[in-house]
Formats: sequence, C-alpha cells, structure tokens
Amino acid sequence: MEPITIAALSLRRFIRDAFTAAGLSSDNAEIAANALATADEFGVSTHGVTLLPGYLRRLRGGGARPLGQPHVINEGPAWALVDGDSALGVLVGVFAMSSAIAKAKTSGIAYVGVQNSGHFGAAGYYALLAAQEGLIGISVANDTPSVVAPGAQRAVMGTNPFAYAIPASRHPPILLDMATSTVAGGKVYQARLRGKPIPNNWIVGLDGLPTSDAGLYPEKAALVPAGGYKGFGLALLVETLAGLLSGAAVTFGIGSWMVVDADQPTGHGAAFVAIDPAVFGPRELFFERVDKLIDEIHATPPIAGIERIIVPGDPEFENQRRAQTEPLVLPSDVAQNVRRAAEMVGLSIADYL
Amino acid sequence: MEPITIAALSLRRFIRDAFTAAGLSSDNAEIAANALATADEFGVSTHGVTLLPGYLRRLRGGGARPLGQPHVINEGPAWALVDGDSALGVLVGVFAMSSAIAKAKTSGIAYVGVQNSGHFGAAGYYALLAAQEGLIGISVANDTPSVVAPGAQRAVMGTNPFAYAIPASRHPPILLDMATSTVAGGKVYQARLRGKPIPNNWIVGLDGLPTSDAGLYPEKAALVPAGGYKGFGLALLVETLAGLLSGAAVTFGIGSWMVVDADQPTGHGAAFVAIDPAVFGPRELFFERVDKLIDEIHATPPIAGIERIIVPGDPEFENQRRAQTEPLVLPSDVAQNVRRAAEMVGLSIADYL
Repeated sequence: MEPITIAALSLRRFIRDAFTAAGLSSDNAEIAANALATADEFGVSTHGVTLLPGYLRRLRGGGARPLGQPHVINEGPAWALVDGDSALGVLVGVFAMSSAIAKAKTSGIAYVGVQNSGHFGAAGYYALLAAQEGLIGISVANDTPSVVAPGAQRAVMGTNPFAYAIPASRHPPILLDMATSTVAGGKVYQARLRGKPIPNNWIVGLDGLPTSDAGLYPEKAALVPAGGYKGFGLALLVETLAGLLSGAAVTFGIGSWMVVDADQPTGHGAAFVAIDPAVFGPRELFFERVDKLIDEIHATPPIAGIERIIVPGDPEFENQRRAQTEPLVLPSDVAQNVRRAAEMVGLSIADYL
Repeated sequence: MEPITIAALSLRRFIRDAFTAAGLSSDNAEIAANALATADEFGVSTHGVTLLPGYLRRLRGGGARPLGQPHVINEGPAWALVDGDSALGVLVGVFAMSSAIAKAKTSGIAYVGVQNSGHFGAAGYYALLAAQEGLIGISVANDTPSVVAPGAQRAVMGTNPFAYAIPASRHPPILLDMATSTVAGGKVYQARLRGKPIPNNWIVGLDGLPTSDAGLYPEKAALVPAGGYKGFGLALLVETLAGLLSGAAVTFGIGSWMVVDADQPTGHGAAFVAIDPAVFGPRELFFERVDKLIDEIHATPPIAGIERIIVPGDPEFENQRRAQTEPLVLPSDVAQNVRRAAEMVGLSIADYL
C-alpha cells in the first residue's frame, strides 16, 4: 500500500467531509477534523486520521451517537460533571475542556469530570485548547484495561493518557502528551502492522515476562506501566479523576472502542483541569517566567550525539510549522486507513490530493 | 555506628523536643515531628528523622525562621497564594494544604501555591492530610537542580516530587509519593554513605553516560528523570505549579537546603491541590468505588516470584501498623543523624529509648 502525500488543509477537509457523511453536524465535523488533523500535523500518526475508520464504524453503528449532545449534569463555579451522551469522545472532550476553561477564568482553577464518553484520541489536543487561551490545561482519560500492575500476570488498568499544556509567549506552549504505560497501545499495533520488533520494556507476555514480539499484543500480551510503580500510580490517579470521581465506567466496565460491537457505547470517562494564571497575578509575568524556563532548558549543553535539548512539545510544533508549507506524508498503514475511511463514506481521496 | 531501636511514639517525642529546643513553638514542633516520624513509621527512612540535623542547622542559622509565619498573600474561593515566610518547609506545607482542604470543601477543587518555603520533606505527608479528611490531595514542590533533561550534560531541574492520596473506606488511602527522577537524591546519598553500588539508571556522570558509582553524586553526577521524557515532563509541570505559578524561585534560584549557608533562606516553592468528592455527589459512593478498584487490583494474579499485587501506599501503611506494636529499627546512617541531632540541642537519645 502506497503512502499518501497530502496537504494538511486538504487532510482536514477530507476528515471533515467524512464525519459529515457519517451524520455529524458541520460544526462538529469541523471540531473533530481539527483534532485528528492536528495529531497528523504534529507527527503523531498513531492518533490522527488513522483513527477515522474506527470512529466512522462506531458513528454508523450508533455506539458513538452522531447527534449525541454532551451536557452538564451538575456544576459549581469551579467544577462540572458532564454526561457525554455517547457522542464521539473528541467532541465530548472539547465540550468539557471549554467548560473547564470558562470556569477557571473566574475561579482560578476548575475540574470537569466526564462520563459516557468515547475514545479519547490525542489527550494533548484538549490541554492545548487551554494553552491557546493562556491557561494551563490538563487532560486525562481512562480506558479498558491493557496494562499490568507491576508484578501482575494480566492487565487491570488502561493506558490512561495524561497530557498538559503550559502557555508561553515567545515560545509555543510546553505540551506533554503521554500514555502512563511505557507506550500507547497504538504504537504496539503499528509495530505489529509494520512487522517490526519492539523494545523489551513495552509489553509482557502471559507469563508476565518482557517480550519484543509485537505480534503477541493484544491477545497474548499486555502493556507495561511507564517506570514501573510510578506509571502505574499515575494511571491510578487518572482512573480516579476520569472514572471514579466523574461517575464514569472504570477498568473492565469500559468497552474497547476497537473491539466492542459498533452499536454499543464504550462508556469512557475523562477529566479536565484548567488553571488561569491571570487570576493569580499579571498574566504577562507568568508567560515571561515560562519563556525564561524554556530558554534555560534549551541552553543546557547536550551530550555527544544529541543535537539539542528540547522541552515537551518542541518536535510537535516544529512538525506543525513544517506542515504549513510542505505536504504531510502519511505512512502506508495510515494511508490504508485513509482509503478505508474514504470507501466507508463514499468519498474519493483523489479529490483531496 | 549502632542502629537505634526506638518506639514510634518515643521517636515522635524526641523530634518534638529537638524542634522545641531549636525555637519552634510547641504546636509547630508537634506538627513537624508528626511529619518526620510518619516517614520513619512508613519505612521511608530517607525522609524521616534523618533530616533532623539539617533542619536544626537551618533553624539555628535563621535560614529557616523558627518563628516564621506562613500567611496568605492573595486568595479566591478556589485558590490561594501563600508566603511561607521562610518557616520550616513542613510547617509551610501543612499550612498550605490545610487551606487547600478548607477551600475544596466548598469549591470542589482548590489550588494553593507557595513561595518562600524550605525543604519539602516527604511529599506524601501533605497529600495524606487531605485523604484523612476524605479529600483527594496532590502535593508537589520544586528544588534546586540535580536532574538532567533527557540527553543533557548537566542538571537543569530539581527532583520535583509529586505525591497524591485518594481516600477509601475499607482500605487505607491510595498513597503515591515519588520523585520525578528515577529516585530521590536521598537514595543516592544513602547508597554513597553505605558504600553500595546503585542501578545504572539512577545517575549519569559528567559525560552524560549512566554510572553505578553513587560516590560521584552530587559533585560529578546528576540524577536521571524517571522514564526519560515522561519524568522530565512531569518535573516541568511541577516546576510550573510549584514555582512559576506560585511566584516562588525556580531552578538555580532555589538554594540547596544541605549546601547553602544556614542563615540563607532557600526559597523553595510548592503547590497543593485538594478535591472534595462530597461536593460532586455522595461521598460514600466515591469511597465504595475506590475500595472496589483497590479490591480489583489486589485480586490480580501475580507472576511467579511475586507474592501479591499492591496499590501505592500498601507497604507504607503496613509498616505503620507494625510500628504501633513493634519498635522502629533506625539503620546506622539514620541513627548517626539522630545522635548528631541530639547533640546539637543537648538532648540525650538514651532518655527516649
């Protein structure tokens, strides 16, 4: 299968049209397309357009409701609980983070917990929405178990992503988007599809021992928490904020978005925290301090073989800048999913190239 | 140097008397003694009474002000900024977390940022204060740089500890207390004092390459972030919440509590977040969900050679339960610091055995 070379704006349009064809309103199609295309622009190909066929499948099956309306079910000045109404996870996430941002602008900090959501997509996207308005954003979600506890034989926890964004002024935001497992499941899938071996700290087999055979995942292997008990501990905090506290499903109560029948909601939970520095003091002073910290890290001398020291987000924003002038090259496995998505909704990808 | 065998309550009394002798009020001496002795009861000997001689030195020098009064300098219903007035870090931390707890009880969530504080001690202690009142607690602090960015030659970030506690009902709280480096500096010091080699993912030498020689630290080696860019990314979030946002010093603006002159404040920052589940729904329902999640993790079958699967905090609370009936055995390097502390304030440890 050939890679696809496509301008970022055209990719956005293609995704938007595909979502519209699957029954999303044009506003919602635009929002969801923005989220997926941003991941591809960032170079995070596991969480971009490659997710589209899976999302379309669920939208058509009704497990993800095309006309679902995320809404607040309870709230205070500094918090809200949101029922995602089984809409597409990315739409629920954008709705909930927008609520957290609005509340933090007066309260200083706000928590929004989400129940009845779907697959989270790229966690960093929601955090970035806050940073784009000058706020610190944190976004987390739970997922069906694929990660072992340290020393355990089988999975009990999701990859439970954790992301934050910190706004700066001269620099783009600091943006960290990480699975609390060594890597996200998507990376193991990708290695499996590409027939590549993986480092032996990504997964363990049914005996609980490390293996570099990506082909075992997910049937006969589970992911490993990042840094052992530290990553597992973070995953537990995420499970608590995104699941226990929000009233959402947790662990095996959550459906796998790739596996469960397309007409069944997955019940994912999520949580969003926004913090507005401008409530505590002069916003510009905060930005200046962030810029200075980034400068200080950038100025640290690298060891032999390393070109320069980066802060989280640097590679993503560089990729995104490049995507403004150069087309994106979607690798074969992503290209295959693009063609599959086009076929599902009767679009021709050739029209967008 | 002989180990010391001492009842937990006697250790508490000894620490309290030492702090009183160094000029703390009896209330403050009690609070600070509680924090240190709890770490020893938990079996976390790097963050217990072993810190006492260093704290006494700074209290006597005035860099940590015995009569310092932490106070709120600006606040809203869901946030506060606290000036620690260069009091002992543990007293500033307890003051700030108490404020976060009180605010979260009405706002649902609250952030309290701290400037002009001192050495943080055990981060988990503050988080636990929230859990003891039925709230989720998160506590973080920055510190003078001892940790490299991934690929860097020298330190640019502190070990920036991150801790949380989640209250349960049938079970003790889930309690995670971690350095964002592979290990806290204290663990490397301890290995150095004990003449033991360390795993080669704890520190890097001046060439940026891994080494297992603890004797190089801290002069000729720096700590490594936990899980590479993930731990470094968490450290940056901690630096932002505890330093940039709170108005505290950051990176090299912070003094090393062990190195700088005893009459100089260190200027550490810290941050505390409390979340009250009872504001969002029935508290008992939340506790029940936490209990069930803990049960589920405990029930996961372990791999060969592992006795049982634990949640963060299990070993600490078991150690603490044991300390109620059996005396603590303080290892030689800790015992040496106890004797040194006793000498500094003219107490005889024999009076407490």
